[in-house]
Amino acid sequence: VRRRSHWGWGYEDERPSADELRAAAAGLAAHLGFGSPEPEEPVPLEAVDLPAPRVALPTGLPLSQDPHARALHAHGRSYLDVVRGHRGRFPHAPDAVATPRDEDELRAVLEWAAAADLAVIPAGGGTSVTGGIDALPGAHAGAVTLSLRALDRVLAVDATSRAARIQAGATGPELERQLGEHGLTLRFFPQSFELSTLGGWIATRAAGHFATGPTHVDDLVESIRAITATGDVWESRRLPASGAGPSPDRLLLGSEGTLAVITEAWVRVLPRPSERRGASAAFPTFAGGAAAVRAIVQDGLRPANCRLIDAREAALTFAGDGGSALLVLGFESSGAPVGEQLARACALCEQHGGNVSEGREGAGGSWREAFLRAPYVRDTLVAMGVLSETFESAVTWDRLDTFVDHVVGATRAALGPEVLVTVRLTHAYPDGAAPYFTVVAPVARGDEEERWLAVKRAASEAVLAAGGTITHHHSVGRDHRPEYERQRPAPFAAALRAAKAALDPGSRLNPGVLFEAE
Amino acid sequence: VRRRSHWGWGYEDERPSADELRAAAAGLAAHLGFGSPEPEEPVPLEAVDLPAPRVALPTGLPLSQDPHARALHAHGRSYLDVVRGHRGRFPHAPDAVATPRDEDELRAVLEWAAAADLAVIPAGGGTSVTGGIDALPGAHAGAVTLSLRALDRVLAVDATSRAARIQAGATGPELERQLGEHGLTLRFFPQSFELSTLGGWIATRAAGHFATGPTHVDDLVESIRAITATGDVWESRRLPASGAGPSPDRLLLGSEGTLAVITEAWVRVLPRPSERRGASAAFPTFAGGAAAVRAIVQDGLRPANCRLIDAREAALTFAGDGGSALLVLGFESSGAPVGEQLARACALCEQHGGNVSEGREGAGGSWREAFLRAPYVRDTLVAMGVLSETFESAVTWDRLDTFVDHVVGATRAALGPEVLVTVRLTHAYPDGAAPYFTVVAPVARGDEEERWLAVKRAASEAVLAAGGTITHHHSVGRDHRPEYERQRPAPFAAALRAAKAALDPGSRLNPGVLFEAE
Repeated sequence: VRRRSHWGWGYEDERPSADELRAAAAGLAAHLGFGSPEPEEPVPLEAVDLPAPRVALPTGLPLSQDPHARALHAHGRSYLDVVRGHRGRFPHAPDAVATPRDEDELRAVLEWAAAADLAVIPAGGGTSVTGGIDALPGAHAGAVTLSLRALDRVLAVDATSRAARIQAGATGPELERQLGEHGLTLRFFPQSFELSTLGGWIATRAAGHFATGPTHVDDLVESIRAITATGDVWESRRLPASGAGPSPDRLLLGSEGTLAVITEAWVRVLPRPSERRGASAAFPTFAGGAAAVRAIVQDGLRPANCRLIDAREAALTFAGDGGSALLVLGFESSGAPVGEQLARACALCEQHGGNVSEGREGAGGSWREAFLRAPYVRDTLVAMGVLSETFESAVTWDRLDTFVDHVVGATRAALGPEVLVTVRLTHAYPDGAAPYFTVVAPVARGDEEERWLAVKRAASEAVLAAGGTITHHHSVGRDHRPEYERQRPAPFAAALRAAKAALDPGSRLNPGVLFEAE
Repeated sequence: VRRRSHWGWGYEDERPSADELRAAAAGLAAHLGFGSPEPEEPVPLEAVDLPAPRVALPTGLPLSQDPHARALHAHGRSYLDVVRGHRGRFPHAPDAVATPRDEDELRAVLEWAAAADLAVIPAGGGTSVTGGIDALPGAHAGAVTLSLRALDRVLAVDATSRAARIQAGATGPELERQLGEHGLTLRFFPQSFELSTLGGWIATRAAGHFATGPTHVDDLVESIRAITATGDVWESRRLPASGAGPSPDRLLLGSEGTLAVITEAWVRVLPRPSERRGASAAFPTFAGGAAAVRAIVQDGLRPANCRLIDAREAALTFAGDGGSALLVLGFESSGAPVGEQLARACALCEQHGGNVSEGREGAGGSWREAFLRAPYVRDTLVAMGVLSETFESAVTWDRLDTFVDHVVGATRAALGPEVLVTVRLTHAYPDGAAPYFTVVAPVARGDEEERWLAVKRAASEAVLAAGGTITHHHSVGRDHRPEYERQRPAPFAAALRAAKAALDPGSRLNPGVLFEAE
C-alpha cells in the first residue's frame, strides 16, 4: 500500500530524494533570486507530538487513531498547511479517521459520531487549499474525519449515453484507469488530479484545466447520491437535463461537505479525443492577449485549451523569453473536425497582434506536465523559506484589465518589493474570464502565517472590490468565508442556513465551512 | 394600448376573425378527420360572471379589479385553461391585479398583501401550461396576482462582455427590440416567446428552441435580482462563473414564484449570427433519426437546430409526406465558420440511413413560423371540440426508444383509438434527449376536464416509470406536482421547504406550486 506524505504533496514513494531536493532548491533559488538553496528537513512523523484523541474508539467500526492517518487528515494542502506540516504542527488533527467501505458503514459512523457528539469532516483526497477540511470540532466534543477513499470504484458504465456511475472517493487516476477499460474518459484534470476525488470535486465545484465548454464539474454531473447527517439517502434522478423545480444537484454542488456526504455520482464521459490541433501565440502585452481570448470565445469558438500566461510567468515556467505574454491554444473532439476552428482562432490572434506558432509541441507543449508537478515544487519552496500562494477569481470582460491591475497592486503592497506576482487566464467565457495569480516571496521562518494572512486578506479584499468572485474553483472553505459572506445575497444565506438546519439538525457536518460554526 | 385576449392566446388585434376561424376549422377538421368545422364562439367578457372580489382596494397602490385584468390573470394558458376561458369560467380569478412600476411599489404591494392576508401570485406573460399561476389563495383570505409586466425595460448593456441588465417583465419581442438597438440579441425563443417574459423564463427554467448549447435560460443568466416576500433584496454578483458555495441563482431558477419575486437579471447576449448553414434529412424510422441525432451530439457537434419530428407530425405540420421522420439541422455562429460542422453532421446522417437535402429552405424551412403560431391553432381546436395537449420530458439515450414507446402507448390507452399522438426531439445532449409529445383527440363538450386529467395522469405516470423527468422545460406548476414530489430527492424537498419557510414565513408566494399549499 502506497502511503501519502503526512505533511506535503503526493505519495511518499513519488517524492524527490534529499539529493534531488537540494538540486531543485539550488536551481529555484538561482532562478528566483531568493530562497535558501539548502532546504530545511521536514519534521518526521515519529517526532510529531499530536494532540491526544478526545474519544475512545468503539469496536466494529472502520475507525483509526493511527498517527499517520490523523496527521494526514488534520488539514488540507494550502501553503499554510504545508508550512505547519513541514514543521510538525498538526493542531487540528482529528480524534479519529473513519474509512467506511460502504454506505451502511458510513451510516454507522454517522450514528456513532452523533452519539459521541463529534463533528464530522467529509474528506476526499485531502487537497483543499482553503482550509476546507481542517478537522475542527466547532461546538462539539471532538472531530472525526470521514474519508471516502475506500469508495473508489466505477460501478457502472452506460456506453450508449456516455455516462458512468462512480463512487465519490475515486481519485483522478483511479477513475481514469477504470473508465479506460471501457475506452472512455472523464477528461477532468484539475491541478490536484493525482490525489483529489470525484466527491471532492463535486463538493467544491472544481474546474478542470479545459478553458471552455463543460469545464466545471457542475456540467459533468448527471445525478448525485449522498447520505445526510441523519442517514437519509439523497439521490437525484439520472437525467440529461430537467426543468423540474430548482436543481437538487446544484444545491449539493459547492456545499463543501456541510449539507450531506456525497457517496457517488453519474457523470458524463467520452471517448479519448481523436482530433487534436494546437498552436501558441505570443503577444506584446497581457491585455492584448486577453483581447484575443475574448475575440476567440465571443466568435463562438470553444478551444479545449486557451491558457494565457503573462510574460513573467512564461519566463518563470521556462515557456517564454520574458518579453511576451503567451497564449496556448488547443482544439479537440471525439470525431468532428477542428482544423477550421483552429485556423479561425489563429487568424483572430494575428488580428490582435499575436505572433502565432502552429503545432502542439511549440512553446506551450510542456505546460501540462509543469501544471501537474507544481504542487511538488511548492513543497520545495516551503522548505526553502519561500512563501508561495495562488489566488483565483472570475470577472466580466469589461472589468478584467482593471481587476488584474488592482489585485496585483494589492498583493505587491501587502508583501513588499521582493514579491513576484504573475497572472494567467485559466478559463474563458463569452462574458468574462478567470484570472489566476501566483505569488512567490521570501519569508523569514516564523513569519509565514502573518505574511500569508496579510496577503490573503489584501488580495481577497481587492478581488471583491474589483468585481470578482472570491473563488472560481478553489472553494470557500474557512479561508474565504469572510469574503464569501459578503459576496452571497443575504436572503440566499438565510435560505442556505435553513436548508442546513433541516438536513443537519446537529450542525455536525464540517462546522465553520460556508457558515460560522455553531 | 393592445389588449390581450381574456381567454385565449395573444392580443385581441392579432387574433383571427370569425371568417378566418371558420376557414381554419374547416381545414383542420378535414386534415385531422375529426373536430367540428363550425367553431363554437367564446363567451364574451361582458357575459362572464366573475367571483366577487374578497378584498377592498386601498388607495395609492397600483391595483386593479377590472374584470378583464382579473379574467386574464385567473390562470395560464394550458389546454384546460383555454377550455375554461372559452366557456367563460374563471373560478380562480384573483381578487386584484397589481402592476408595480418599480421595486418600491412592488414592496408596498407585498406589505399590503401581508396586512390583508392575501396570497401573492407573481406573473409574467401568463403563459403557464402547468397551472403555475392560478390565483389560488391557499390558506389565505384571498389572492392578488403580482404582474411584472410594467417592468419591461433593458436597463443597461455591456457590449464588451456581451451582457445586458433586463427587467423581469419584458416579453421576448420587447427585449429583442431594445437589444436590437445595440445590435444584440438574446436569441432565446421558447414557443411562448411572443408573450412570455424574462422573469417567467427564469422562474420556470424555460428552454429556447435551440437544440444544443446554452438553450436553457439557466445558462444565459449572469445574475438575478429578486425581492422576497418580506421585502428583502436578493441580488447575486454579476459573474461569468463562480465556485463560491452552491449557486444562489440556481436556487431561484425553477423556484416558480415560491421563493422570491424576480425583478431583473443580467443575461448573456450576442450579435445576430453572421454564419448560418442548414440542411434536413429524412429517415425511414424515428429511432433511426434519433440514432443520427445521438451520433451528431456525441461527435462534439453543437447544432443550433437539431429537431427530429416523427412521420406523423411531419405530415400533420405539412413538412413531410407522412412516410419519413424528418431531422431539421442548422448551424450558426457570430463569426466562426460552420460549414465543416454541417458537412460532418450531414455525413453522420447519411451513415445512419438519412436522405439529406442541403439548404435552409428545404423541408424544414417553415417549421419556425409554424412553431410560434401553434398556440393560436390550439385555441381553434378548443373551439372545434378537439382536445390538444403536449407532454415533454428528457431521458438518457439508453432509455429513449422504450421511453417513447411507453409514453405513446400510455397516451393511446388513456384516450382510445381516435387519438393522434406525435413525437419529436426538441433538444439533444451528449447523454440524452428531450422528447416532446403532441396529443390531439376528439372530445365531447363537458368531457374535456375528465379526459384531459385521464391522459395527463397516464402520460405523467409513464414518463416517471420509464425514467424521464416530469418536465424538461414546461415547469412543475400545480399540474405536475404529484410526479414532481416523487421525482425529487426527499432530503432536497426538506431543504427546499426549509428555505421557503425562511424566505416566505407567511407562505404567501404562489401557494400550491412546488409544495402543498399551507
